Amino acid sequence: MFPVFYLVVLCLCRPVLATNGTRPNIILLLMDDMGWGDLGVFGEPSKETPNLDRMASEGILFPDFYAANPLCSPSRASLLTGRLPIRNGFYTTNDHARNAYTPQEILGGIPDSEVLLPELLKKAGYINKIVGKWHLGHRRKYHPLSHGFDEWFGSPNCHFGPYDNLERPNIPVYKDWEMIGRYYEDIHINQKTGESNLTQLYLQEAVSFISKYGISRQPFFMYWAIDATHAPVYASGPFLGTSRRGLYGDAVREIDFSVGKILELLKNMGIANDTFVFFTSDNGAALISAPNQGGSNSPFLCGKQTTFEGGMRVPGIAWWPGHFAAGQVSFQLASIMDLFTTSLALAGLDPPADRQIDGIDLSPVILAGKEIERPIFYYRGNELMAVRMGPYKAHYWTWSNSWEELSQGINFCPGQNITGVTTHDQVEYVKPLLFHLGRDPGEKYPIRTSSAEYQTAMLGITPVVRQHKDAMIPGEPQLNVCDLAVMNWSPPGCEKLGKCLIPPESKPWKCVWPH
Amino acid sequence: MFPVFYLVVLCLCRPVLATNGTRPNIILLLMDDMGWGDLGVFGEPSKETPNLDRMASEGILFPDFYAANPLCSPSRASLLTGRLPIRNGFYTTNDHARNAYTPQEILGGIPDSEVLLPELLKKAGYINKIVGKWHLGHRRKYHPLSHGFDEWFGSPNCHFGPYDNLERPNIPVYKDWEMIGRYYEDIHINQKTGESNLTQLYLQEAVSFISKYGISRQPFFMYWAIDATHAPVYASGPFLGTSRRGLYGDAVREIDFSVGKILELLKNMGIANDTFVFFTSDNGAALISAPNQGGSNSPFLCGKQTTFEGGMRVPGIAWWPGHFAAGQVSFQLASIMDLFTTSLALAGLDPPADRQIDGIDLSPVILAGKEIERPIFYYRGNELMAVRMGPYKAHYWTWSNSWEELSQGINFCPGQNITGVTTHDQVEYVKPLLFHLGRDPGEKYPIRTSSAEYQTAMLGITPVVRQHKDAMIPGEPQLNVCDLAVMNWSPPGCEKLGKCLIPPESKPWKCVWPH
Repeated sequence: MFPVFYLVVLCLCRPVLATNGTRPNIILLLMDDMGWGDLGVFGEPSKETPNLDRMASEGILFPDFYAANPLCSPSRASLLTGRLPIRNGFYTTNDHARNAYTPQEILGGIPDSEVLLPELLKKAGYINKIVGKWHLGHRRKYHPLSHGFDEWFGSPNCHFGPYDNLERPNIPVYKDWEMIGRYYEDIHINQKTGESNLTQLYLQEAVSFISKYGISRQPFFMYWAIDATHAPVYASGPFLGTSRRGLYGDAVREIDFSVGKILELLKNMGIANDTFVFFTSDNGAALISAPNQGGSNSPFLCGKQTTFEGGMRVPGIAWWPGHFAAGQVSFQLASIMDLFTTSLALAGLDPPADRQIDGIDLSPVILAGKEIERPIFYYRGNELMAVRMGPYKAHYWTWSNSWEELSQGINFCPGQNITGVTTHDQVEYVKPLLFHLGRDPGEKYPIRTSSAEYQTAMLGITPVVRQHKDAMIPGEPQLNVCDLAVMNWSPPGCEKLGKCLIPPESKPWKCVWPH
Repeated sequence: MFPVFYLVVLCLCRPVLATNGTRPNIILLLMDDMGWGDLGVFGEPSKETPNLDRMASEGILFPDFYAANPLCSPSRASLLTGRLPIRNGFYTTNDHARNAYTPQEILGGIPDSEVLLPELLKKAGYINKIVGKWHLGHRRKYHPLSHGFDEWFGSPNCHFGPYDNLERPNIPVYKDWEMIGRYYEDIHINQKTGESNLTQLYLQEAVSFISKYGISRQPFFMYWAIDATHAPVYASGPFLGTSRRGLYGDAVREIDFSVGKILELLKNMGIANDTFVFFTSDNGAALISAPNQGGSNSPFLCGKQTTFEGGMRVPGIAWWPGHFAAGQVSFQLASIMDLFTTSLALAGLDPPADRQIDGIDLSPVILAGKEIERPIFYYRGNELMAVRMGPYKAHYWTWSNSWEELSQGINFCPGQNITGVTTHDQVEYVKPLLFHLGRDPGEKYPIRTSSAEYQTAMLGITPVVRQHKDAMIPGEPQLNVCDLAVMNWSPPGCEKLGKCLIPPESKPWKCVWPH
């Protein structure tokens, strides 16, 4: 029923030259914890994203676009490697099916053995910049400029606290190789009002970079990984209090404004036709931070941290004027990992042949309206929780979060409680829980295992899962060991700023990942 | 904070003449149980309503549009009278806060004392047609042609069973004064496949009516109250199996197609500029019928039968080419009752001065972009359950449905369970449950009663509620008495068809409304 021909889809004749005869510029706009339901075009009732909605009306909307993981670091590692976290090492084996990421105390990061998108693009002559959050490890060997980027303005971790720099160092902000200050000390985010001009700084970085390289014949790659919608959310003065949705909405409005400015700049510079832009998010909205600090995954179930749709279905918009008819909707099952393979294809490059790549080349979808059959795999840590093929999604494991956490007020599915689906125990299914996401996008109504529909759908899914599991060679897990000594005590450049802190003695431990 | 000036908003200088010098034609497209989340423009993931989405892009979208009641008959009575059900009699006092409607055994219907929109429009020279479901009483005195309509093609009740015409008569379908057949006998709906050509019949009725009167100088009013999205849902052969959403989606697709045909006809006839069209639904989606037979209220809480947003927030689209800038979004709090007052204003008529009218004239909103402060009242039967003013909604009573019903599998909030909000007891609040619908459209996070925000919002809401309650003079309840003898045994015209059935002896009883 589901022929597994997704691996042999041919790439377009490459390179797809831009109108100026060069390879196209590539801009990936990656949001942080922004939910599918946060865009007007996806039904947010306040309809406050006119620029993103216009981007969709000029481009292609992907309602079936997925993050690679329900959590930030693994999803980002997958975007840049085209590989599932369990392959690129962004997972943990400390416990079963646990979400892990890169907090300050993590020892690991992106392995040198992984080949990142900017490394490959560099070979094709691209100049590469990351603006915003890296999150692939903060120790020197994991630095983005060690992995293919030429420029960086942003931070290695989230803009979490401690906010006082006493017990733990505040997160540094880098310009290229050196720290230029720390959050809450030099880079201000007012915790009371939520005011910060960070998105404006990130916009300015984008504008400068595009302005500089957009006029050269050297193609550029910009990875704009901003984080205003990650709690604690923030917006700059002119946007504060302007949304019908509160502070979170202010942040979305400023992002929408900024994306509008970037696309406008590309048009004004006459390089819109030469620049492929894709907008998406690293995972679903963090419902645990709602309503003031979290977004919307409506109509999908649960949010960030879960392998229900709300955890991994994210906005997806492709934009590249002149290369396809405007205003299309593609129901292609697509993944953030596809941006790796697709970007390579657009740049006329082959993906690495020496390893399994999970991302597929979407250029036939984008440029020729093709639809490619392929599965979507939903992992939580080291466990394959669910698989989607066509409209069907089969859960082999369910888990929202533990009873213990629930009793502490941690709930990734607030207000949603579907018996036998949103389980607080890790539940394994010999006969997977099957949903038809077309008529049941909210994963509320499992299809009866005795039905013909169930049997037929599982006939297609089962061999794909078996093949996937049989062929899986997990990477070395990077997120198992923690150590206070590796935190951002003395990032490069701290001397100049007089901001070096003394690390404690190294005492590594097995990180605890509670969910 | 909320000045109650909504009653004194001046109407535009009337009549608003259409470009051909006549009063504008008026078409009200009323859907049955279609949810806010069923339209692509409101985020339905399958994006299968291109014609409705285009209607919005050519017109004005109302994301804050409300039914007058979470149930069909009362909401429809309110649309045509401009008055809350508690005033026009479409409620019950048999029990507290119960939803009542007009099943076959109901004695009551729309009282003669109520003045209906077509009665008034007739005075201004309009020819009036209802296509589809009436639902304002099925006995002869309640017949639509006794209440201002000139033509009728449709049925007095829903297309419910019994399907065999044995224990109870099947619902008749009328052409004007006479029955032309009965559902499941002459008007086919295949219960297995869901196939029926009813929407095509309704479309043809609309096309014929518009074609006939659109070329005359006599303005027309068409009330197109179709019901393909009410369970048991149906679609005609060419649409069956075409939706990504299953049978319900097939019905939506056929409706979308049909609306497209109607608007196209208006354009082709050159009368689009002379015809005001409004699209909406009678109440929220019936989640109890989901996923195969029910729609989506995403991101709102619960569905039909409840006074949560999912029960009463419905799609709203105004369309009238040439009279306002296309593609607007209005955040006006608006109600289906406003269509009464607005239609009158567009026809140059004043609403009746001898009674309280709850609908406001939206023409300043539609034609001049005004926003009018006004409350939305959420009633369940004889009880004011909740009130919205600005972004705030205060629940004075909550009730999803009873524990007893829940134990029988009846749940109007499937998969949604918010402690202290979706209550299975009728709960009254001395300090109302308050929500900010902008940042919390899903009514998940009550605002703390001790907060300054709560105090300020309630300062605005409390006097409005007090004034509303003090001034309320309820109408005579029409939905209290049932009697098997009044069912559709022998509708007019049955003799010609040989379809008269013998009614049983009259034994009236107090109707039981369980929720």
